Amino acid sequence: MNVQRKRIVIVGAGFAGLQAARQFRSAPVDVTVIDKHNYHTFVPLLYQVATAGLEPEEVAQPIRRILRGARNVQFLLATVTAVDLDGRVVITSNGRVAYDHLIFAAGSTPNFFGLESVAKTAATLRDLDDAEALRDRVLLAFERAAAEPDLERQRELMTIVIVGGGPTGVELAGALAELKRHVLPHDYPELDLSIAKVVLLEATDHLLPEMPPKLRAKAKEKLEALGVDVRTGSIVAGADGNGVALRNGERVAADTVVWVAGLRAVPLAESLPIPTGAAGRLIVRETLQLPGHPESYAVGDVAHVGGPDTPPHPMLAPVAIQQGAVAAKNILRQIAGEELQPFVYKDRGTMATIGRQAAVAHIFGLQLNGFLAWLLWLGLHLVWLIGFRNRLLVLVNWGWNYLTYERAVRLIRH
Amino acid sequence: MNVQRKRIVIVGAGFAGLQAARQFRSAPVDVTVIDKHNYHTFVPLLYQVATAGLEPEEVAQPIRRILRGARNVQFLLATVTAVDLDGRVVITSNGRVAYDHLIFAAGSTPNFFGLESVAKTAATLRDLDDAEALRDRVLLAFERAAAEPDLERQRELMTIVIVGGGPTGVELAGALAELKRHVLPHDYPELDLSIAKVVLLEATDHLLPEMPPKLRAKAKEKLEALGVDVRTGSIVAGADGNGVALRNGERVAADTVVWVAGLRAVPLAESLPIPTGAAGRLIVRETLQLPGHPESYAVGDVAHVGGPDTPPHPMLAPVAIQQGAVAAKNILRQIAGEELQPFVYKDRGTMATIGRQAAVAHIFGLQLNGFLAWLLWLGLHLVWLIGFRNRLLVLVNWGWNYLTYERAVRLIRH
Repeated sequence: MNVQRKRIVIVGAGFAGLQAARQFRSAPVDVTVIDKHNYHTFVPLLYQVATAGLEPEEVAQPIRRILRGARNVQFLLATVTAVDLDGRVVITSNGRVAYDHLIFAAGSTPNFFGLESVAKTAATLRDLDDAEALRDRVLLAFERAAAEPDLERQRELMTIVIVGGGPTGVELAGALAELKRHVLPHDYPELDLSIAKVVLLEATDHLLPEMPPKLRAKAKEKLEALGVDVRTGSIVAGADGNGVALRNGERVAADTVVWVAGLRAVPLAESLPIPTGAAGRLIVRETLQLPGHPESYAVGDVAHVGGPDTPPHPMLAPVAIQQGAVAAKNILRQIAGEELQPFVYKDRGTMATIGRQAAVAHIFGLQLNGFLAWLLWLGLHLVWLIGFRNRLLVLVNWGWNYLTYERAVRLIRH
Repeated sequence: MNVQRKRIVIVGAGFAGLQAARQFRSAPVDVTVIDKHNYHTFVPLLYQVATAGLEPEEVAQPIRRILRGARNVQFLLATVTAVDLDGRVVITSNGRVAYDHLIFAAGSTPNFFGLESVAKTAATLRDLDDAEALRDRVLLAFERAAAEPDLERQRELMTIVIVGGGPTGVELAGALAELKRHVLPHDYPELDLSIAKVVLLEATDHLLPEMPPKLRAKAKEKLEALGVDVRTGSIVAGADGNGVALRNGERVAADTVVWVAGLRAVPLAESLPIPTGAAGRLIVRETLQLPGHPESYAVGDVAHVGGPDTPPHPMLAPVAIQQGAVAAKNILRQIAGEELQPFVYKDRGTMATIGRQAAVAHIFGLQLNGFLAWLLWLGLHLVWLIGFRNRLLVLVNWGWNYLTYERAVRLIRH
């Protein structure tokens, strides 16, 4: 029997796409992974790049390096402009790629909830460019403050507003507060750092909504001890280059506003003829197949499993990784004529660091905080990071930062 | 006696400017260092950034970090747009800065010798952005080749021409040849790497003109053993996006052309009312003072000591470092009413790495090549690199690269 090898296309080399690609290693299929970058980004450490603690390159790994050894997996550097589900063709900036099976793992983008003024002026933290741009922006604001005679203007330049009290917002706020406390006073002896401020705005009544109440309170307590101005119940109504306006009429003057208040599926997802749920995510079957297109799958941040009435899974790396694996295995089952399996999320918990020796972790059913949670966070992120060399360099940096209180990558590049 | 503290302005935080700033530490003067970047770049390792062996951030150090502890030295992030020598004012993008003494250390830029077509299309290697852009360009060319069906076009994409057989050209050629040999074949199993080529063009009859003949020959031999096509006596007449034209009528088709054939003083130097010598360098007195402006000094790549008939010093870090120190000390002597000292270059030699365990060094009067020269090169560059953390990270990277034959930073960022 001469069976034609199936062609599988994976759109996106994030956590979901790469995990899917791994499943196909040495399977009798031909796989093409398409991404607009030639590297995979370890998103959970981006905030450390943004706060000058890590080199950008250490949280990225070349995709071809990751896929080395899987001779049936090819990489194509291209931007996907459209997917023709009926014609089974992915249209890219670098040509058309036909497929028998598709895994759509194109990821997410910041959700500004229609606030155009925020979209135009706020920094975000979704990829390496964002992280580097935020680092540049913060450092440049302090350079400007150093050359600024007016005290009020100095205050605006040295105020950083973070919008969104999820793990990213909490970690970023903690890291910026430490930068402000331990590093910037040495760099800018000419500035009065006591007027510098990190403000964390959260629309709901709690930081870290997915955490148990005890850990939420611990996180808030620790951030405040670091000098972060935590304001829950603060809903942003708009922004300009000099600050944010709150819905209650208040205004916070700040040159740097970072928006980490939510994500939505990439616009490409909504271009597919598939119903979408909240945040523009494609509604997929429990097997992760697209409705009406059983050969095609959507996974990770672009997917909403079940109907519009089913609550979506959080846009987190563990969900993406587990879905990537299930989609790939289901394709192999489909090819073999076996029964498909539904996706069931194994929630092992979440964690967030807040600063030196401080973190909160709700993991394996345990509630941890303080030094132990921090060690656990460091260890797990080191293990999860792709590439032994990256781990080594990050470990050297972490050790260095811990011992010297330094954040050495204080370069303004662009 | 109430003496007004003298204000000293240093334009440029390269090797010359920083060395000058160091001399003023704890002297009774107020110093402002002005640079358009907030970091100092260790130029001798840029070629390793361009060949994906080092992270860009590891060969840079924040200027404020370097100047920490010198409370009488300030930093201003600004682009200098003009210098009013008579009015003793430096005009910058960030305001005017008055001075009593000036050290002009604004550095150099590639010298295209009037070849506009080369200036427009060739890559260069003078700063961190150049190095990252060259890395991006080489890797992107291979990505394009991987998606290119036409073999001739593939060949153009995979050919890299380096123009200039000085130390930078030699080191870059060796590093690219190793990238081509050890790394790219694993990344691009779909490509026939035997058609990829590194071509090194040198206008004179010898590589490394400043080296003794024996070492020149060794360098050529080693490069050729690595597969580099070394062509001496090849004068470039022009370039476009697809290759270079030689003066003898030949053409080398290549998507990537790197111009490291010469440097000239930055354009700002020629805007000063001071006679210039070869390569637009300011002619300064033996004390490094500007003629007619005894309070002002020029050092490093912008300076040509003596008259137009005196051969200029090479544009190298050791010259810049020694001149920076002499200028600063002369200013302190001037303030103290002491006699100024002339600059005398102590030439300790030059060196260039060519690849794994291979280098040539003419240093301390010795002619070394091979493993010993390579070890010496590694050791000295590690010592010269600024910042203990940078040294540590570079050492980890070098160890990693040596043991694994890897060049891990294969990211296309822009």
